Amino acid sequence: MPLRGLAKAKNFTLGPTAPMKTFTENIHIQTKDSNNLRNSGKSHKLTNNIQNENLFRYESKIKSDFDEIVPTLKEIARIQHHEDFINKAQKISRKNLGIDLPLHVLDKSWVKPLDMRALYAWCAFKQHDKLSDNFFNNDPLEGAAGSRDAEDFEKFLLDCGIHLLDITPCSDGRLAHSVAYVMRIPFSSVRRRSHAGALFDIENTVNRWVKTEHKRYRENVPNEAHKDTRYLKVVTYHFSSVDPLHQGCAAHGSNDKLAAAEGRNKLYAFKEAVENSFCCGASVDLMLIGLDTDTDSLKIHLSTSDGGIDLEKTISTLEIYNSTINFSKEDAEREICQTISKQSSKDKLSGLEKFTYKLIVNNISQIDYVKSFHNGSYEDIGHAERFIGVGIGFKEVHLRNLTYFAHLDTVEEGAPDLDVGVKIFTGLNVSQDLPIPVVIRFDYSGKVPGAKERAINDCERVNNAISIRYKNLVDQGLLHTCSTIRDRDNIHSAQIIGMSLDKKTEEAH
Amino acid sequence: MPLRGLAKAKNFTLGPTAPMKTFTENIHIQTKDSNNLRNSGKSHKLTNNIQNENLFRYESKIKSDFDEIVPTLKEIARIQHHEDFINKAQKISRKNLGIDLPLHVLDKSWVKPLDMRALYAWCAFKQHDKLSDNFFNNDPLEGAAGSRDAEDFEKFLLDCGIHLLDITPCSDGRLAHSVAYVMRIPFSSVRRRSHAGALFDIENTVNRWVKTEHKRYRENVPNEAHKDTRYLKVVTYHFSSVDPLHQGCAAHGSNDKLAAAEGRNKLYAFKEAVENSFCCGASVDLMLIGLDTDTDSLKIHLSTSDGGIDLEKTISTLEIYNSTINFSKEDAEREICQTISKQSSKDKLSGLEKFTYKLIVNNISQIDYVKSFHNGSYEDIGHAERFIGVGIGFKEVHLRNLTYFAHLDTVEEGAPDLDVGVKIFTGLNVSQDLPIPVVIRFDYSGKVPGAKERAINDCERVNNAISIRYKNLVDQGLLHTCSTIRDRDNIHSAQIIGMSLDKKTEEAH
Repeated sequence: MPLRGLAKAKNFTLGPTAPMKTFTENIHIQTKDSNNLRNSGKSHKLTNNIQNENLFRYESKIKSDFDEIVPTLKEIARIQHHEDFINKAQKISRKNLGIDLPLHVLDKSWVKPLDMRALYAWCAFKQHDKLSDNFFNNDPLEGAAGSRDAEDFEKFLLDCGIHLLDITPCSDGRLAHSVAYVMRIPFSSVRRRSHAGALFDIENTVNRWVKTEHKRYRENVPNEAHKDTRYLKVVTYHFSSVDPLHQGCAAHGSNDKLAAAEGRNKLYAFKEAVENSFCCGASVDLMLIGLDTDTDSLKIHLSTSDGGIDLEKTISTLEIYNSTINFSKEDAEREICQTISKQSSKDKLSGLEKFTYKLIVNNISQIDYVKSFHNGSYEDIGHAERFIGVGIGFKEVHLRNLTYFAHLDTVEEGAPDLDVGVKIFTGLNVSQDLPIPVVIRFDYSGKVPGAKERAINDCERVNNAISIRYKNLVDQGLLHTCSTIRDRDNIHSAQIIGMSLDKKTEEAH
Repeated sequence: MPLRGLAKAKNFTLGPTAPMKTFTENIHIQTKDSNNLRNSGKSHKLTNNIQNENLFRYESKIKSDFDEIVPTLKEIARIQHHEDFINKAQKISRKNLGIDLPLHVLDKSWVKPLDMRALYAWCAFKQHDKLSDNFFNNDPLEGAAGSRDAEDFEKFLLDCGIHLLDITPCSDGRLAHSVAYVMRIPFSSVRRRSHAGALFDIENTVNRWVKTEHKRYRENVPNEAHKDTRYLKVVTYHFSSVDPLHQGCAAHGSNDKLAAAEGRNKLYAFKEAVENSFCCGASVDLMLIGLDTDTDSLKIHLSTSDGGIDLEKTISTLEIYNSTINFSKEDAEREICQTISKQSSKDKLSGLEKFTYKLIVNNISQIDYVKSFHNGSYEDIGHAERFIGVGIGFKEVHLRNLTYFAHLDTVEEGAPDLDVGVKIFTGLNVSQDLPIPVVIRFDYSGKVPGAKERAINDCERVNNAISIRYKNLVDQGLLHTCSTIRDRDNIHSAQIIGMSLDKKTEEAH
């Protein structure tokens, strides 16, 4: 096992013209300027370089919005006893972060040291708010995985025999970009439900399956119920090729064999639940994928002869990338077809093979993305999330290591996922005396009367449960929450309905 | 308002041949022997007297099983320092209660006073277990509202244009017999979801609606999706005719106008949620019913001219009972028809009117039941529940004032319901130094692999949440839990998977 990650890393070449760099050589040369950074090695013929540039521009912009918080607050900390402090602080904040700081926090600097924890949390929440607004209003992933590509992609899915694509990646922030970046799938064409260890909830997913089938029967959406298509459930577990024993999935003790096996168990249980609970040949399709969080390459598990999922045999997109790096576009396409099927042309592929082909080609762009902008392997091979997202929603978050997701209805049920997140952020933030920013989100259907009020109540209930479960952190100002709701029937962005920062101010009076 | 209840009570006559007794006269003459008790006043011609006898025999047997606990434990308490105590205690318990007491509790009587709280909880759990076994194995409500009548009743429902009957009574134990006794509906033909104030969960009920419709589309069960039938959602709020200002619904401050209005709001919200979320004329039928917890008579709310629910205009089954007490069967039937419709024959009724007719006739038997066996108004006009039922299930509980229901998936969401129950039992039990017996239940589908394990996990999660939320009571042995699961695909009874009594023993070692 210890050698496996290294072996994998060695396999990752940049092609004959670009001699391979070791990961340690690369790790510290990343800067924020994509033009300077871009590796000069040639890219794969199937790579969409323009899309890559756009995606990197987006990633850089958003992440720098968050990463400017600490330097900005340090600058502000230094002047807290200067004359006209509030105006000076706001000026710095507007210039560096594009946001105003909360007056009721700044206001107290004369009487007690500035509450930097509160300011940090405020800035993280405001940057998330900006990102969210921008996402829903400007569709920044357009042309890559944006909502405007969704219609074509949904037609493609139906061609592949899939009427719903439901993906569960791990909650881990290093998988938060799985859909839009790693797989290059329009975010709105996918049901994404993140869970620690990718261990999704069976009953909840069966409910979703029922809703999906009901819509087909009642509305012929996305297609008629009698059409021979399936609900595809994908589990994306993860591993680290650079440091397999420490940077794999925490929920499975960095054991990728276990992560794959447990993912398969969940998929089988879901399929059996559907088959045993409903008549008339009800079933679903399953797919198990491993994601290398260092290179963003995929291992797509093959089927066994009896229709199950093979834990050993996989298609490695990194191997395909390396073996076809010198190929023409046509040759590379043919090679991929032959890897997944006996067909020699992509036009002859059908069903899940056709979908797999798409995933591989899309992921080749991402392998080049990591190669071009992150020197072949991310600098942050471990956790580096900026906030925890709790609740139902977060359609706007598609960046690696930005958000740890705890997808939950209640803290009581979702505590295992949330505990992992808090543990991660204890290392990332609390150890540096910075608070854990927790964004709570409940999406609702604006078409349903009372649904908005219920979403607000859900936020309050979860906020309250968090403040009980993590009382120690909350009492010290080391965990702050920002409650948000979003009307999923409306393109407009999420709405902040309250922050723990507000409450503390009220209590202080 | 203060006079309303009294006015109602005055209206409740036993007919000209049986001069009306006041409630206070009646209140203390109840005994457990039905033959001695049965009021000699004549019954209504539409009353099913044989069914009434059977139902009363069942109610008496089960309640006496619980009500013998305290006298039995008092007897045992007196001999705790006698020679051969354990054998003597077991003998008394077997004779009076038909159960063995837990050895590990009895065993300690020589070293510390007998833990009567633990014994009380144990006895309550064991009596519930017996009731549950008996219910699922012997169908004790057969011929009244048992499972064997279900098939006929479901056909009748379809005749009325109803393909699912979903009733939400209040969690209050005084409504726990609503289905099997008050409405005389086969328990297995109904989806019952009890909530404090009858305030059911909209999203959860929409999910249930989707599942119901999906089954019609996929399996033609209970009928084809294109058939013009509806999902009927009934809310049963309650009030007290004897003491309207104190013994009404606690969740609505004993204000029955508010209880009715809030129930209607929920019904409207559910209907709008279905209509706005689904196309093609998706809708549901609604019914609002008030239940007088003293007489078990119903007020069935009429429709307004625009198809809504009228908060003022109701059909009172008690008024019908009184006005037709001297009628022949045929005349009474005709009178009921004319009260609810312009039709003069029950055979000409259709749709919800046909269903309403059935409810009224069934409820007349229950009015006579209360008249015959409880002297026209229950002795226990207030709370007198024997245990709290928490979770999903309890198909076996159909007796008045036996169980306070907190229908919930999580304590986090269901806390308002559960808090009311704990408050009620603080008055009933804790004030007498007796513990609150809480039976946790999660039903599961045995056909689905892993569902049993998940139900066990759900029990443990809820048990844990209860022990945190009510720590003070639990620490003093004033709240005990018994976790049970039941395979809903199997006729066999529920299964106890653990009690807080077991745990306390382990901890003591």
